[in-house]
Amino acid sequence: MSELLDFDKQGGLITAVVQDTNTRRVLMVGYMNREAFDKTLSSGYVTFFSRSRQKLWTKGESSGHYLVLKSMATDCDGDALLVEAEPIGPGVCHKGFESCFYRTWQDGQWKETDPKVYEPDSVYGAKQ
Amino acid sequence: MSELLDFDKQGGLITAVVQDTNTRRVLMVGYMNREAFDKTLSSGYVTFFSRSRQKLWTKGESSGHYLVLKSMATDCDGDALLVEAEPIGPGVCHKGFESCFYRTWQDGQWKETDPKVYEPDSVYGAKQ
Repeated sequence: MSELLDFDKQGGLITAVVQDTNTRRVLMVGYMNREAFDKTLSSGYVTFFSRSRQKLWTKGESSGHYLVLKSMATDCDGDALLVEAEPIGPGVCHKGFESCFYRTWQDGQWKETDPKVYEPDSVYGAKQ
Repeated sequence: MSELLDFDKQGGLITAVVQDTNTRRVLMVGYMNREAFDKTLSSGYVTFFSRSRQKLWTKGESSGHYLVLKSMATDCDGDALLVEAEPIGPGVCHKGFESCFYRTWQDGQWKETDPKVYEPDSVYGAKQ
C-alpha cells in the first residue's frame, strides 16, 4: 500500500495538486519524483521536482512562501497527489497572486480575475 | 490571450484538475489536448484525452456520471487547468468513490478513508 504510487507512468513524476487546507482553494499544480515526495513527508514542507531546472525545489525556498503540509491523498491510478497545505505568505504564485490559477475563461478568452497580493519584484528581485 | 495554453510542454496535453463547484472537493485529475478543451467548452461536459486509450473521453459517457462545466481557470505557466464542475451521479471515481482521491496518507501508509458511494459493477459491468 505504501508502494502504491506510480512514478513510472510519467517518466518518474507524479502530478501534485496543492489545495489550501483552510479556504479549499486550489493553489498550484507541481510535479514530484520519489525524492520530492519523501522530502515533503520528512520536512513537512511541500517539495517538488522542477522540470525546468531538473532539481528538487521546496516551494518557498526563494520567496519564503512555504507550503506547510497538512495531509495527502492519492488517486485511483496512483499517479496524482492531492496535497492539502497551509500557505505561508501572501501568495503562492511567483507572479504575485494568491493562487497560480488567477486567470479565468470568460467570453471566449482568458481574463486576469484575481487581484495581486504582493509585488513579485520585491520578493524575487527585479530579474524574474 | 486565448492562445495562452501551452499544449507543447507535455506532448500535446495539459493537466486538468476537476473541483466540485459546490463542495470544493477535488474530484479527479485528467489530461486534455486542444480538441478535448474545445469539446469541453462547446458541449459543457468535461472531456479529457485518455492517455491509455489515446482518444477523447467525455467523463460520464459510460457511467452517466457526467461533469457539468461551471468555470475554468489556467495557471501562470498555461499548462494546467482548474475546472470547476457539478458532478452528476453519486461518484466520479470508477472505483465507486465520490472522488478519485479516496486514499489518504496516515501513519506511513495509504489508507482507504472514503466510503463507497456506489457499486462499480452495477455501473460499468463486472469486467472493469
